[in-house]
Amino acid sequence: MPLDPSRTVAELRELARLTSDEGGAQRVCWSPAWSLARDWLDQRLAALPVSISTDEAGNRWATLEGRSPRRLLLGGHLDSVPDGGWLDGTLNVLASLEVVRRIAEAGVPRHTVCLVDWADEEGARFGLSLYGSSAASGSLDLDVARRLTDRDGASMPEVLARHGVDFERVKAAGRHLRDAAAYLELHIEQGPVLESMGLPLGVVTGTFAAERHQVVFGGQAAHAGSTPMHLRRDAFLGAARLALAVRDGARAEGGVGTVGSVTAAPGVVNIVPGGATLTLDQRHPEAAALARMLDRAQIDSRRIAGEEGLTAEWRRLWRIDPIAFHPELVALAEASAREVAGASHRMASGPLHDAAEVAKAGVPTVMLFAQSLRGLSHTPDEDTRPEHLELAVRALDRLADRALDWIRPTGTSSRAEA
Amino acid sequence: MPLDPSRTVAELRELARLTSDEGGAQRVCWSPAWSLARDWLDQRLAALPVSISTDEAGNRWATLEGRSPRRLLLGGHLDSVPDGGWLDGTLNVLASLEVVRRIAEAGVPRHTVCLVDWADEEGARFGLSLYGSSAASGSLDLDVARRLTDRDGASMPEVLARHGVDFERVKAAGRHLRDAAAYLELHIEQGPVLESMGLPLGVVTGTFAAERHQVVFGGQAAHAGSTPMHLRRDAFLGAARLALAVRDGARAEGGVGTVGSVTAAPGVVNIVPGGATLTLDQRHPEAAALARMLDRAQIDSRRIAGEEGLTAEWRRLWRIDPIAFHPELVALAEASAREVAGASHRMASGPLHDAAEVAKAGVPTVMLFAQSLRGLSHTPDEDTRPEHLELAVRALDRLADRALDWIRPTGTSSRAEA
Repeated sequence: MPLDPSRTVAELRELARLTSDEGGAQRVCWSPAWSLARDWLDQRLAALPVSISTDEAGNRWATLEGRSPRRLLLGGHLDSVPDGGWLDGTLNVLASLEVVRRIAEAGVPRHTVCLVDWADEEGARFGLSLYGSSAASGSLDLDVARRLTDRDGASMPEVLARHGVDFERVKAAGRHLRDAAAYLELHIEQGPVLESMGLPLGVVTGTFAAERHQVVFGGQAAHAGSTPMHLRRDAFLGAARLALAVRDGARAEGGVGTVGSVTAAPGVVNIVPGGATLTLDQRHPEAAALARMLDRAQIDSRRIAGEEGLTAEWRRLWRIDPIAFHPELVALAEASAREVAGASHRMASGPLHDAAEVAKAGVPTVMLFAQSLRGLSHTPDEDTRPEHLELAVRALDRLADRALDWIRPTGTSSRAEA
Repeated sequence: MPLDPSRTVAELRELARLTSDEGGAQRVCWSPAWSLARDWLDQRLAALPVSISTDEAGNRWATLEGRSPRRLLLGGHLDSVPDGGWLDGTLNVLASLEVVRRIAEAGVPRHTVCLVDWADEEGARFGLSLYGSSAASGSLDLDVARRLTDRDGASMPEVLARHGVDFERVKAAGRHLRDAAAYLELHIEQGPVLESMGLPLGVVTGTFAAERHQVVFGGQAAHAGSTPMHLRRDAFLGAARLALAVRDGARAEGGVGTVGSVTAAPGVVNIVPGGATLTLDQRHPEAAALARMLDRAQIDSRRIAGEEGLTAEWRRLWRIDPIAFHPELVALAEASAREVAGASHRMASGPLHDAAEVAKAGVPTVMLFAQSLRGLSHTPDEDTRPEHLELAVRALDRLADRALDWIRPTGTSSRAEA
């Protein structure tokens, strides 16, 4: 069975039809539509010489035994956000399905090949993304996850139990990563960079370091008609100035900085805001540059607060270190993209992916990106040209072949040998 | 009975005790606490040689007949916002009560003196302020008011009917203004200007022209991690820039401009805002200067939208022309303030007051302001020093005397004669 990338496009469309409504894809993890997607995948895998199993965390594995026990992992996720698109996660899984078909057709591979469908990448139900891969990598904080509940008040352990998952044992899924020699993930870019460059494919060098904070400015609420400009302590103007300063800081360092939400209090048309709260999301491929961006924003906020007669309080919401993918796999991915598309672009990923968790666990990892149209994702408007999807499947296939050649028959990992 | 300003302070405190809870004053118009306040006032008026009546709009009048039928009006309002302060509105009524006591004690006055307690100045229940005075002035839009409902779904005509007011006849209250020769109103400043100047009293030359708009910026929602700064169309940054430009424009013209509420959509920490909506309140004592402020803001919004790749749409929420008080009464008010406090300050009022409606009806009008502490109002923290309250009562008393001298015994109004 030769590689048939057009089949992947057709299967993506079929899965979207089966698991979407008028609002978009509805494959939220642990939902009936998500279970249906997994059953649908199982039916396709049943035609292949693979063994299928679910690990302790609820991740689904299809294993094609090779001549060595060393394992090449191809990963993705079938779950979506509510009202999601047709490609986020599913492209990875269905492209990997096509690649496994092609490898299986060619006979017993040099190394064992596994397709993994990670559980709950999006975190749409419990607000905790990368659940399945972080259970496997070991970075999942069980004490935090144990207390999470969905909007109906059901706890994460309760919901997982309904799907046969014993919450207290989810980290045992890590055994799959201990044997892994390489991990490959193809994903849509979910950003506008490749489209702006006219390139169908990119190679991901790693994921950004990120810092998220809430910043609260405090001033003095006052009547909008009776308070002269020079006697005001307008908290929203502090927030406005900080948002612009954050952009300047991101541009200076080549990173990104976003004020995604903002509120003015009391939020009345004729009252000068006495309070303003914003969220700040800053990312950069390099930890040191991100630290400078954060430092600068904090210094700016204090300067602005001083000038405006405000207070400024920072609270960290979340942070993550940058993750670098494996340089040799990056080179192999670049060669594969160039082979099928004539060109490629190296870029770090702002969004996190399961690949970041796998890389944290020490598995040599790389990702390919397929161009997104208008940078849209997490919406039914998410799209990629079919010809670019087909190129992406071809590139993943070429990369899988190169990775199988690159993996040494013995040893614990190529990285350890390097 | 000589004027006793300390009695006014004591009565303000007594009324506050009777009609407040731990959250502040609760004299919302048409509520039981407001009715209680009116009954309490009636009991005090009963000791005076005045006739008491309620007009067609529900305004309460106490009339001290004079030697001429020409009428000097002293006005205020007993209603408060929910969780309001102890002075907004009540100072005017209780200071006027003390002045009427002093005038009545001195014998039959030269002209008839009326104390009016306007109904629903605050508009807290139906969102329509200056109800009673605008019914009397004729500017109340009955078609708008007829459709207003409170949070329980009761219409304004229904609620008024429970208080004996026939909604379709409210404008007949205008007969009281047709006979009026002058209108005086004392109010707390509700702003920080007098405090910043160290002055207990000010004279109000008129009310600001005002423009209120909603401005909606449209951009492109995008992932905060995957969208480089130069490819963003961040609607919130447009809003932030406009808010700062509005401040510059207000400073340049000597007016005020306020962004009181703002929202970013979708309002998620890791999504670049694709939309942003703000409210803009601009005021200036002069119509031409306000028009320049508005023009500049609209030009700025188009320039900013062009630079940021956004759309900007404006929608007018409300506007009002400036109202000039009577120059001769302004001079009398200034002389009265100087007489009791040694100094005064002429200023326009950003907040509207019933006085603006009375002036619109052609009645010569002026207001006195008493210093507010920290500019606070519409909050239980609203406050004025007792000694300043006493000075304000004295100034109103001196002004009432001067106005009685100023009013000509015949003719329809001093303004018409001037």
